[in-house]
Amino acid sequence: MKALNEWRITQMRVTPIAFRDPPLLNAVGIHEPYALRSIVELETNDGLVGIAETYGDEGMLKALETARELIEGFSPFDLNGMDERVKHGVKATKSAGFEMNLAPGSHGAKNAAKVMAAFEGAMLDLIGQRLGAPVCDVLGGAVRDSVPYSAYLFFKYAEHIEKPYAPDAWGEGISPEQIVAQARRMRELYGFGSIKLKGGVFDPAHEVACMAALAKAFPGVPLRLDPNANWTLETSIKHAPALNSLLEYYEDPTPTLDGMNELAKHTTLPLATNMVVTSFEELKQSVRYPGRGPVQVVLSDHHYWGGLRATQTLARICDTFGLGVSMHSNSHLAPSLIAMTHLAAAVPNLSYACDTHYPWQEEEVAAEGRVKFVNGSVTVPRTPGLGVTLDREALRTLNEQYKSCGIRTRNDTAEMKKYDPSFTGKSPRY
Amino acid sequence: MKALNEWRITQMRVTPIAFRDPPLLNAVGIHEPYALRSIVELETNDGLVGIAETYGDEGMLKALETARELIEGFSPFDLNGMDERVKHGVKATKSAGFEMNLAPGSHGAKNAAKVMAAFEGAMLDLIGQRLGAPVCDVLGGAVRDSVPYSAYLFFKYAEHIEKPYAPDAWGEGISPEQIVAQARRMRELYGFGSIKLKGGVFDPAHEVACMAALAKAFPGVPLRLDPNANWTLETSIKHAPALNSLLEYYEDPTPTLDGMNELAKHTTLPLATNMVVTSFEELKQSVRYPGRGPVQVVLSDHHYWGGLRATQTLARICDTFGLGVSMHSNSHLAPSLIAMTHLAAAVPNLSYACDTHYPWQEEEVAAEGRVKFVNGSVTVPRTPGLGVTLDREALRTLNEQYKSCGIRTRNDTAEMKKYDPSFTGKSPRY
Repeated sequence: MKALNEWRITQMRVTPIAFRDPPLLNAVGIHEPYALRSIVELETNDGLVGIAETYGDEGMLKALETARELIEGFSPFDLNGMDERVKHGVKATKSAGFEMNLAPGSHGAKNAAKVMAAFEGAMLDLIGQRLGAPVCDVLGGAVRDSVPYSAYLFFKYAEHIEKPYAPDAWGEGISPEQIVAQARRMRELYGFGSIKLKGGVFDPAHEVACMAALAKAFPGVPLRLDPNANWTLETSIKHAPALNSLLEYYEDPTPTLDGMNELAKHTTLPLATNMVVTSFEELKQSVRYPGRGPVQVVLSDHHYWGGLRATQTLARICDTFGLGVSMHSNSHLAPSLIAMTHLAAAVPNLSYACDTHYPWQEEEVAAEGRVKFVNGSVTVPRTPGLGVTLDREALRTLNEQYKSCGIRTRNDTAEMKKYDPSFTGKSPRY
Repeated sequence: MKALNEWRITQMRVTPIAFRDPPLLNAVGIHEPYALRSIVELETNDGLVGIAETYGDEGMLKALETARELIEGFSPFDLNGMDERVKHGVKATKSAGFEMNLAPGSHGAKNAAKVMAAFEGAMLDLIGQRLGAPVCDVLGGAVRDSVPYSAYLFFKYAEHIEKPYAPDAWGEGISPEQIVAQARRMRELYGFGSIKLKGGVFDPAHEVACMAALAKAFPGVPLRLDPNANWTLETSIKHAPALNSLLEYYEDPTPTLDGMNELAKHTTLPLATNMVVTSFEELKQSVRYPGRGPVQVVLSDHHYWGGLRATQTLARICDTFGLGVSMHSNSHLAPSLIAMTHLAAAVPNLSYACDTHYPWQEEEVAAEGRVKFVNGSVTVPRTPGLGVTLDREALRTLNEQYKSCGIRTRNDTAEMKKYDPSFTGKSPRY
């Protein structure tokens, strides 16, 4: 092994991948047949390789390439220095024309934070491997042995319109009965203790009816509804009384801090968000509201908050201001899920089970195979580093799939137009 | 070496020490002839010893003893778990009757945060030793190679009233000329690039005159005055115009967040504090003021903010809310100074040179001897862990001095009564 003072990152490799994604509906449209991610590998001069999973859209790939010189040649321990270099070096990319616009809530203006997170993840994996400690220990140690996730339900069609591959096993999910069946299957397969429905898709009364059906089918199970800011303030207020007795929190029904702040006066539910508080700047604005304020639970996501350490800081700020903390998710594979698990283990004030899209994916890039859920939770790995190694054959296959799938930037709205040419994705729609 | 999963802290040792301290004046009285600290050692089942320096007052020693069962038997990596155990386990000590009341600004209600900081410091030393990395790397890496400190001037008498030992080399420091001479000597010996005067001692007009004399003697050198909340709001406002052109910041002239907030409307200077924002709770209150707010620079102190990682979080919050960051100090030896140096190296937004009492001490507990300043800065150690090892003979000597000096809880006001029986320590006095 290289002496610690000579330990350096010699090469960054970025491999974009695409994996099958079901026809899941959301406020801006529908998931395309393939979801994009990328695997960032940082190799050191003693042959260790640290990995992180991040976004795979074209803008992200360009941002990572721009930042190559900010990581190659530096020490894996240089996390604070990397943050500073990326903060200043990637800032300008907004004007360079590769702003990223991903899923709702995953704002485009966060290139630097996204690049930091990708680099940091791989660096923490390296530090952990070098130390012989799991990433959670590098983050100050696990306060829990396993991390609870929620059953993340979607309205969905039975099949993608262009039938690129065989239909998934979940079937259609539109009626309350179908949503209850989806929840039942997901709980049976994974044991999740709480249930979230991605709303903002159909008429709000229908979505509230689905929540009532879930409450009836699973008494005592905590429920959440996320209309993805697709409801006006008026609609959000109108449905608040019915939801008060159904939900553990009311997630992003309506856009803007001002809107959420007004809504907060009309509901007893905590308001959760991954849309109006997505950066430290927005967090500052949020906590400066007088009274109850617009947000009571921040749904963090290390992929765009600047990394695992930044998310720990976010959690500490939430603790300071009396806000709850949980986690947002996009479509992802094992490296992201395990990073989330290490992080959540090292956040004492994690208030709710985390979101994950993981049950909707079938493919995997990890040599360890698909991650197991036990009673809805993922066990925190105790192996050195992240605890995920790459299955090179799978990586090659998913990279080939990326090349052939033709998708370069996620666009759920364009996909939805294939089903409904009049669809605009205009929001709030209800 | 023990396997990492079996690595445990087997024993905590706490050694109270006392070292000579000059007759330095402040708002509540005068330094006693001996300053108290304690050295916390955590020994592991593979024979490593991690150390931290903290307060030595009776209350702190009792708090540490109470917390013994919260650290012995646990892994050195278990920082987050330790924080949680201490937060809940030491909370109750306020009612147990050993609240600590130390220097002004070092509030008594922070037992848990103080114990966390002491434990964390020694644990980080252990992690660094085990990893072969300096503590700053365990904190995410140094963004600077050395950390700047300021010349910390005090009004002082030439000698302690009871003449317990030979007078120090600094002589009397009361007149503007004497203060300028003290600054000149301190800059010559250590090379400090900025100068702070501890005020709140004499008539405010005299203290402002001292600042004017310093400005004249050291043109272009950043200056600070700290009246230690011993000025009324009216007095603080009255002297603001004269100080506007003299200072880089105006530190704690007047008590309470409301007082500082009102003062902020009457000065162009940033207001700095280690008295009205000393906890995350007070920080929350502070940033919720509308407008400029009561505080523009937080003077952190890992010894009572909950440790090095908590102080990094504090710094990130300050960054979020547009506040500057620097560091407060009490009388201390090398283990504290080097811990501050690792921390400051790992805080990107450190805005000002840090305070340190170190030049006022002559004794040392570190086997490496007295810490060197180069151009007013301390070089960040690159050796594994904290980079400070104990001189066992010196530790024994300073512990003997603790036993024989008779001081068990710092009391600057009682000491001042020996000089002036009518002195009450009432504040604000001017």
